[in-house]
Amino acid sequence: MKNRIITISREFGSGGRTIGKEVANKLGIPCYDQELIEKVAAKSGFSPEYIAEHGEYAMGSWLGSSIGRDYLWGAQKKTICELSEQGPCVIVGRCADYILREKANLLRVFIHADLQTRAERIVRIYGEREDAPEKRLKEKDKRRAAYYRYYTDMQWGRATNYDIALDSGTLGIEKCVDIIASLY
Amino acid sequence: MKNRIITISREFGSGGRTIGKEVANKLGIPCYDQELIEKVAAKSGFSPEYIAEHGEYAMGSWLGSSIGRDYLWGAQKKTICELSEQGPCVIVGRCADYILREKANLLRVFIHADLQTRAERIVRIYGEREDAPEKRLKEKDKRRAAYYRYYTDMQWGRATNYDIALDSGTLGIEKCVDIIASLY
Repeated sequence: MKNRIITISREFGSGGRTIGKEVANKLGIPCYDQELIEKVAAKSGFSPEYIAEHGEYAMGSWLGSSIGRDYLWGAQKKTICELSEQGPCVIVGRCADYILREKANLLRVFIHADLQTRAERIVRIYGEREDAPEKRLKEKDKRRAAYYRYYTDMQWGRATNYDIALDSGTLGIEKCVDIIASLY
Repeated sequence: MKNRIITISREFGSGGRTIGKEVANKLGIPCYDQELIEKVAAKSGFSPEYIAEHGEYAMGSWLGSSIGRDYLWGAQKKTICELSEQGPCVIVGRCADYILREKANLLRVFIHADLQTRAERIVRIYGEREDAPEKRLKEKDKRRAAYYRYYTDMQWGRATNYDIALDSGTLGIEKCVDIIASLY
């Protein structure tokens, strides 16, 4: 049997990363998030900070310059494919659901939550910023959706793109972890 | 505590109705689908056949005449609100997720599946028709989405509209039933 891979796409502030880590812990498999960024950095020469920003978000000046962007996309894609061959794992973000879509045994998860739940969460985790949390969330979501759309030609957050989509605000983080782990 | 209500929105042929019935059986609560149509018929004077078609699908000539359409919408809405006050239940389709959105203790479910799984299913259940099953599915989905959009001003099938969205094709009907029942 092929390696079972769980991909987690998530709205900013929905706790998708935390859910990914807890699912991986529960199942005793690795979760690639920061580690994925570092592997892409080693492969591409980009800094981890650059990758964290540009590897998932469309930028203001983004549509103007395609060479660095496509180079980073290629390095991310290659890294995600390699990781998926190494063994079962959880991969957070970075269009992994799309990149690995032909793979058997893929479980594609989407995590979302209402704006208020996410606003409270990002202030708790990342602290206050000059911009209101709702404004930060909307901008992040918009840029993430634009990135996803550009590279996958699919609509981000559409239920039909995923095996399961969960509202972490109404269901709670722990329940989401339990359901995902039970599907493994 | 308020009555716990499960609303099930579904793509045509995804098995959403079957899942709704099995969840209701498992939990020992009623599932309103055909029965809802009959209640609306008694209230409105429309025939059950007319309601089955016009109470969930935008029609070809639909945008032209709004009086009968809005009258039916009102009767459906009233019936759904009354049922939700009577006790815990499962309600399939008819924008119940939107109509009851302010209700505490609502579990909003969306069921979908890939085109091939659904095509096989509708031929198995409803038999062959002159039009290919894929064509029938696309038309049904399009008309259902248009109806939903018109009355709710929301996008049908968007993950963020639901507490949980499940792919019945990849997960299987039984697993979907188990997960939904476990959230009750």
